[in-house]
Amino acid sequence: MKKIAVVLAGNGVFDGAEIHEATLTLLAIAKSGAAYQCFAPDIKQAHVVNHITGEEMPEIRNVMVEAARIARGNIKSLTEYNAAEYDAIVFPGGFGAAKNLCTFAFDGTDLTVIPEAEKAIKDTVAAGKPIGALCIAPVLVTKVLGDVKVTIGEDEGTFKAIEQIGGTHVKTTHGEIVVDERYKVVTTPCYMLDASIVQIAEGAENVVKQIMKML
Amino acid sequence: MKKIAVVLAGNGVFDGAEIHEATLTLLAIAKSGAAYQCFAPDIKQAHVVNHITGEEMPEIRNVMVEAARIARGNIKSLTEYNAAEYDAIVFPGGFGAAKNLCTFAFDGTDLTVIPEAEKAIKDTVAAGKPIGALCIAPVLVTKVLGDVKVTIGEDEGTFKAIEQIGGTHVKTTHGEIVVDERYKVVTTPCYMLDASIVQIAEGAENVVKQIMKML
Repeated sequence: MKKIAVVLAGNGVFDGAEIHEATLTLLAIAKSGAAYQCFAPDIKQAHVVNHITGEEMPEIRNVMVEAARIARGNIKSLTEYNAAEYDAIVFPGGFGAAKNLCTFAFDGTDLTVIPEAEKAIKDTVAAGKPIGALCIAPVLVTKVLGDVKVTIGEDEGTFKAIEQIGGTHVKTTHGEIVVDERYKVVTTPCYMLDASIVQIAEGAENVVKQIMKML
Repeated sequence: MKKIAVVLAGNGVFDGAEIHEATLTLLAIAKSGAAYQCFAPDIKQAHVVNHITGEEMPEIRNVMVEAARIARGNIKSLTEYNAAEYDAIVFPGGFGAAKNLCTFAFDGTDLTVIPEAEKAIKDTVAAGKPIGALCIAPVLVTKVLGDVKVTIGEDEGTFKAIEQIGGTHVKTTHGEIVVDERYKVVTTPCYMLDASIVQIAEGAENVVKQIMKML
């Protein structure tokens, strides 16, 4: 049975992993006949956002502890990720990918990537295994790999940033994927577009199907 | 377009709404061609549980603010629920249904139900509209309606409690539903069984399909 690692950047679209994208990635993996293992960085969240008001809350939360809510408790620290033990790795989106895994949401094209996310991406590429990235997560992958072909949909500010970081951006719409054959990177826009939850399910499924084909 | 209300009891299996059940209920509704609106009680969570260790955390969180993470910010207080405006209502499971919507997790068969959940269930029945309940949520519905036919799967302690509260329990396995024709209540066990996320999707889909048939 194939095993796919899923990296969760918290739990909630505005400061963590986007919950629909994360859940529907897990569903797509299970439907494809593979097993999943969730990972998250064991670090403080960049901040905590009230998802009704959009305002920052005076709280401190841990990315891995919150991500464990999506994983139903079965989660490992991203520092424990060993590319040799998994067939692929997938990064769902949500602002957490741009706030907790890297600093794109705060620093734009001057972003830095946390060491455990950078290592996970580099190790997976070195092992010749596929990487999936949904929504805003392709920014992170581009920062680490440089000249990679990805999509975040059609948002001009974001795709220009990707090109400035060194990537090649391909415009896409709902459910479409872009495949970089050299690095085996598969991306789809999900909620970077004004999407329905059905379109998120399609995007996640198409990414996972493409990854399974590459194994 | 049919509109279905979804009541979220927080965000996370151990102290809130079970995230897969909640997300896959939203997906099932959207796939059926209906629209959804999330609701949650605007009250403090019974407690906050660290989903890695299972231990209580010294924090105070609001059920509706946390549930908004699943709803991507689009959520209403359960006191605003008006049965006349919706075609059906669905309660996903997770301990939140037994901790925040009622006190079953703490008080067993001596449980009390929060007023806004009791009113939502009674008003929906009075309007002749269907109610869906997943996982442990049928306990709550039984407490409010009394002699109703439901399922929580096959856990003996729980189904005996349901019978003691006044309900009739029917044993089921993955994805199966039980329909109470008189009250139009549709239930399925989901994670009350040792289920995979694919089986949760099936359970949610079967509940929603049955509800759509009843409209």
